Amino acid sequence: MTKPAVAAVDWGTSSFRLWLLDAAGAVLAERRSGEGMLTAGAEGFGPILEKHLAAVGAPDSLPVVVCGMAGARQGWIEAPYVTLPAGLDGILAGAVPVPGQGSGQGSDRTRKIRILPGLAQRNANEPDVMRGEETQLAGVLPLFASGRHVICMPGTHSKWVEAEGGVIAGFRTWLTGELFSVLSKQSILRHSLGDNVAPALPDTPAFVAACTDALAQGGDIGPSLFRIRAATLLQDLRPADAAAKLSGLLIGAEIASARQLFDLPAGEVILVASGPLGTLYAAALRLAGCAVLQADADDAVRTGLFEAAKRLGWTGPVSESSLS
Amino acid sequence: MTKPAVAAVDWGTSSFRLWLLDAAGAVLAERRSGEGMLTAGAEGFGPILEKHLAAVGAPDSLPVVVCGMAGARQGWIEAPYVTLPAGLDGILAGAVPVPGQGSGQGSDRTRKIRILPGLAQRNANEPDVMRGEETQLAGVLPLFASGRHVICMPGTHSKWVEAEGGVIAGFRTWLTGELFSVLSKQSILRHSLGDNVAPALPDTPAFVAACTDALAQGGDIGPSLFRIRAATLLQDLRPADAAAKLSGLLIGAEIASARQLFDLPAGEVILVASGPLGTLYAAALRLAGCAVLQADADDAVRTGLFEAAKRLGWTGPVSESSLS
Repeated sequence: MTKPAVAAVDWGTSSFRLWLLDAAGAVLAERRSGEGMLTAGAEGFGPILEKHLAAVGAPDSLPVVVCGMAGARQGWIEAPYVTLPAGLDGILAGAVPVPGQGSGQGSDRTRKIRILPGLAQRNANEPDVMRGEETQLAGVLPLFASGRHVICMPGTHSKWVEAEGGVIAGFRTWLTGELFSVLSKQSILRHSLGDNVAPALPDTPAFVAACTDALAQGGDIGPSLFRIRAATLLQDLRPADAAAKLSGLLIGAEIASARQLFDLPAGEVILVASGPLGTLYAAALRLAGCAVLQADADDAVRTGLFEAAKRLGWTGPVSESSLS
Repeated sequence: MTKPAVAAVDWGTSSFRLWLLDAAGAVLAERRSGEGMLTAGAEGFGPILEKHLAAVGAPDSLPVVVCGMAGARQGWIEAPYVTLPAGLDGILAGAVPVPGQGSGQGSDRTRKIRILPGLAQRNANEPDVMRGEETQLAGVLPLFASGRHVICMPGTHSKWVEAEGGVIAGFRTWLTGELFSVLSKQSILRHSLGDNVAPALPDTPAFVAACTDALAQGGDIGPSLFRIRAATLLQDLRPADAAAKLSGLLIGAEIASARQLFDLPAGEVILVASGPLGTLYAAALRLAGCAVLQADADDAVRTGLFEAAKRLGWTGPVSESSLS
């Protein structure tokens, strides 16, 4: 097995992911768990990290680079937001060391750990923040290194980012994923969607129709939400179609709204997303007439963390021969 | 004490209200409780009604007229929706008797009870339903008996109604109250609003600013919701102001959205609402440039129930002398 050079950790609100990487960024081992910031705040960030490092056989000296909510004020060590405009260099310059960590065991070695900061947009009327997505952006920098680009990063809190010449110029957040969750579980619409809500498929007619309608409405979902309930009562709408409708409505509204805020360059959007959500957004963006350049979100965050480790000199000097 | 002529009951999803009325519609007694459809479905509608009737000393022979969710499929006795366009006569024609009710006690008398139906808009693309609001509309019929009018009925599920010559021509529903509830309690915004969310006051600057912004955005709340969270993190937004912002944003978006769907006649809106919510909507409608003609929602539903009782002949013949 190749020697590990660094551990890369994406530590979100409700999830923990760790990759053991070699000096070229190749994945040697991976860990995933639900021990996000909410769990780790109670159990301790250090012990959870060391447990996962031990599980993949990482040596005590292996450095760790972390992004996400571990750097929030309620997280492990606060990595204060870097203010826009910001490039990858600015994000790295804001990385915060975690003091005195290590596995203990009588050793006097302490592990080198850095937490990457989030980004803040401090305009008086458009305040916004991100934590974790900035590292995904660092991972897809080659896609927007020159010229102007708009990047869509869907999720619980979807981010739309405007970049110019590799620098993050501005961004906005939509609560799309969270709205789907609370509306499907907590609102009157739960009676329409039922208990077993599966992700919609992008070619489901109910998804396409709702998304197309929402794109035409310019982001206004107000009069459309209750219509799902009424269609259950009056038109026997099936639960799976109700879920597809709600999904299409919310994603279509997000794209319509973002399209009004960001002048989409030649209609091309860089989509950073994984799995079924990535497939749905790609379909919705195409319905909106956008060309889509898609990057996998998991690959992006891992690459961003590895880029940070490289800049920190943790992956060793790149020898001439290794470039051959 | 004047002799009671009828009991009027507004039986919603989570609330029960009963008024004992004399032959002129004057209130002799009132009962309010949280025994809405959800509770009554388990405990039984009949026993709950009889308990409240006994508490106000209503005789076994007193007839009862009911509106609201008691007439839903999951309610007491289903009063099927009346399809638009519909006037007060159509609503009354759809009233459904509840068979074999009464206090029992060895008496062979059964109480006369009628449940008023809701309204359904059965357009293929704009299905919508209401239960309870149709009775409020019957109670304010004199306000829209001639000409075209738009009526705003705010609440958990706000209804906007278009009426022409006293006939309900169409309506749409916004989830405004429910969105405020789930967002303030279940979403990331709960960290901004805190645990003690009080109704906003209409002259709170944060309410006015958010409402004005939302009115200008044409109903798109997408990029504005998370801004409340970001303002807490970056600008020390106070919880009370966060609640006022969310309230202003949702109400402003509803009005902006409704303004696009309904051609507001000379800008005048009939507002049927009570209490702090009525005050907020009146202020928001004025911010939108509308003239507001306000009616109290509690008075409206009671009047509507009494009108139904009159048409059923339950308030006795109106003698010449009683008109003097």
